[in-house]
Amino acid sequence: MGSTARPEVPLPAGFTCHVGNVGIKDDTDDFTVIAADRPCAVAAVFTRSRFAGPSVVVSREHAADGQARAVVVISKNANVATGAAGLDHARELAAGVATAIGAAPTEVLVASTGVIGRPYPIARIRAGMAALTWPFDGSDAFRVAQGIMTTDTVPKVAEATVGDGPARVVGVAKGVGMIEPDMATLITLVFTDADIGAEQLDAMFRRVIDVTFNCVSVDSDTSTSDTAIVMASGAAGPVDPDALEAAMHAVALSLTRQVARDGEGAETLIEVHVDRARDREQAKRVAKAIVNSPLVKTAVHGADPNWGRVAMAVGKCSDDTDIEQERVVIRFGDRELYPTIVDEAGLAQLSDYLRGDEVRIHVSLHTGDAEATVWGCDLTDGYVRINADYTT
Amino acid sequence: MGSTARPEVPLPAGFTCHVGNVGIKDDTDDFTVIAADRPCAVAAVFTRSRFAGPSVVVSREHAADGQARAVVVISKNANVATGAAGLDHARELAAGVATAIGAAPTEVLVASTGVIGRPYPIARIRAGMAALTWPFDGSDAFRVAQGIMTTDTVPKVAEATVGDGPARVVGVAKGVGMIEPDMATLITLVFTDADIGAEQLDAMFRRVIDVTFNCVSVDSDTSTSDTAIVMASGAAGPVDPDALEAAMHAVALSLTRQVARDGEGAETLIEVHVDRARDREQAKRVAKAIVNSPLVKTAVHGADPNWGRVAMAVGKCSDDTDIEQERVVIRFGDRELYPTIVDEAGLAQLSDYLRGDEVRIHVSLHTGDAEATVWGCDLTDGYVRINADYTT
Repeated sequence: MGSTARPEVPLPAGFTCHVGNVGIKDDTDDFTVIAADRPCAVAAVFTRSRFAGPSVVVSREHAADGQARAVVVISKNANVATGAAGLDHARELAAGVATAIGAAPTEVLVASTGVIGRPYPIARIRAGMAALTWPFDGSDAFRVAQGIMTTDTVPKVAEATVGDGPARVVGVAKGVGMIEPDMATLITLVFTDADIGAEQLDAMFRRVIDVTFNCVSVDSDTSTSDTAIVMASGAAGPVDPDALEAAMHAVALSLTRQVARDGEGAETLIEVHVDRARDREQAKRVAKAIVNSPLVKTAVHGADPNWGRVAMAVGKCSDDTDIEQERVVIRFGDRELYPTIVDEAGLAQLSDYLRGDEVRIHVSLHTGDAEATVWGCDLTDGYVRINADYTT
Repeated sequence: MGSTARPEVPLPAGFTCHVGNVGIKDDTDDFTVIAADRPCAVAAVFTRSRFAGPSVVVSREHAADGQARAVVVISKNANVATGAAGLDHARELAAGVATAIGAAPTEVLVASTGVIGRPYPIARIRAGMAALTWPFDGSDAFRVAQGIMTTDTVPKVAEATVGDGPARVVGVAKGVGMIEPDMATLITLVFTDADIGAEQLDAMFRRVIDVTFNCVSVDSDTSTSDTAIVMASGAAGPVDPDALEAAMHAVALSLTRQVARDGEGAETLIEVHVDRARDREQAKRVAKAIVNSPLVKTAVHGADPNWGRVAMAVGKCSDDTDIEQERVVIRFGDRELYPTIVDEAGLAQLSDYLRGDEVRIHVSLHTGDAEATVWGCDLTDGYVRINADYTT
């Protein structure tokens, strides 16, 4: 089993794609359809936002029976907070794609990402749907990843083989800001040609998402459009479920790290590992408090081994009254900084470490034996510039 | 009753101060003592951080009996995560000041603010305590506010008279970052010459803090040193309790807004008002989600009337399942942006509004009749620069 990220990754057997431009915002790719030649097992998890968009509403309905033929993604417009017309547009999108590929409307899932509160330029989308030619001739996951990008600076693709093959898992993701997924990330699409039932696929996918995408945070903001979908075509036949889950985990983990590294304005990937915790929830809560702290994020950006800010972030978890500051251990990389205090020469070495493109913060709570790992990125002038200038 | 912020505000009758430099970090004021000529009623609230510093531990002990003579503040070093020696130093500080003013050690409260994880330069503090001359000849609250500053750009002072007088309330505060108080703000000291019992003072102070300092957030990080203290000398005699609470509220509200406006790198004060909520907790939770959202904060910084980000922040409160996006109303200033969508000319006007030095975001949830107001500031390149460069 291997996991890589590079251009020209073919979709698993049974899937093809169409990636094009219909003029949602500019002339970049904004209309992406991935379809299977027969019904697939499907599982999906979505944002819990109270402002969830119509795409999420429609996809949740259409994934409920565990079967789907295709997913269509509109990028550059989220179709969120667009009222009754927005919901009509999402249903029309599913139905139009279904007609083009000879499927039922309920066999098509929809995802959408971009600006909030603007109606779709629906006439352009209608023209795009009318021009679809089935069967599709595309099969490159790299093109799919490009088609769903908004302000991402790089397309995000990962693949893994299941055991010794021939089944494969291929995933794509997009998302650089508004990222603290709550049930799912912005948009993640995972495809496999393994043959697996929808119920087993759903359970497996939720376990994988829980320790990957649900552990990444760029800015503590949660999208209204978070959508993670997995589709299994079955073209490669049945596989060992553990090997499939391992391959799926490798793909999701790679995509998670790619998303964190490409966080808006980010220059450094931050991995926070918390162990010796009472339970996984405590470990994850403390790890998220650290990775989301603006003061920790700016310290990493400034290559400042200011471990006091990590102590502050641990301290914020004030309901965790079993955390005793005398027993907490804080490390940057492998270097212990608290309670053993390092001298100025040691701090200078750590500053060099923090200048790398990946930083690991490791905290032991000594309240139990559970652990969790989360991923994020530094907070830079670039984040402020990107988000002060976006939209209008 | 009036509330102002200007230099040369005398402390209330019965209080004097010493403000000086003992060389904690540089040659700016770092050693501040405010003392009363007789025991005062005292109340205090502190951080709930699991990394609370020794100053908090000692002050909590010394305030427990509702009586105190003085408070001493060391700025530029928080004395946090400094182990057993740090606790010894905090006790020595209280005892040394007590000796100088002829009080019991338990009658002196301690507060400390600055870098975490560095021991006090205790020899310098000892020299400073030895040089104290009692009675103090200082009485200017503006000097006190200067003495407790770290990276604050302006001293923060507020005063109010109680009813028609003669009793007064004078408050000072410091704090620009690591500000999402959890029971108290960084350091707030409030003095009054009104005569009031400790128990009544405590209840009144907690009510006031709850709707002022506990509603400000600069960066969602919670300090290890949060301390709010009120002392009542009684020199002006008894007063109407409601008038005293109103004066105390005016002082605390003014200081809260000064703290938000002086947030690290901040250029704009953001006031978020949420009404028509199920209960005050829901209103405050939603208001904090908005004021803490990096995407909302950068939109304000960029004068971008991107109300979709406010919708996103409301949506983050996903456990509030009674919030229906169809019933939410979002306004910037008095201008409704959702569900009534404003046109491009309206958005241009709003962009002008967002360029002001104070922005009000008003959201109605329509889940009930409760409300809350919170304060914060925009997120700027300046915040990143300040915090990427601080300390080492």
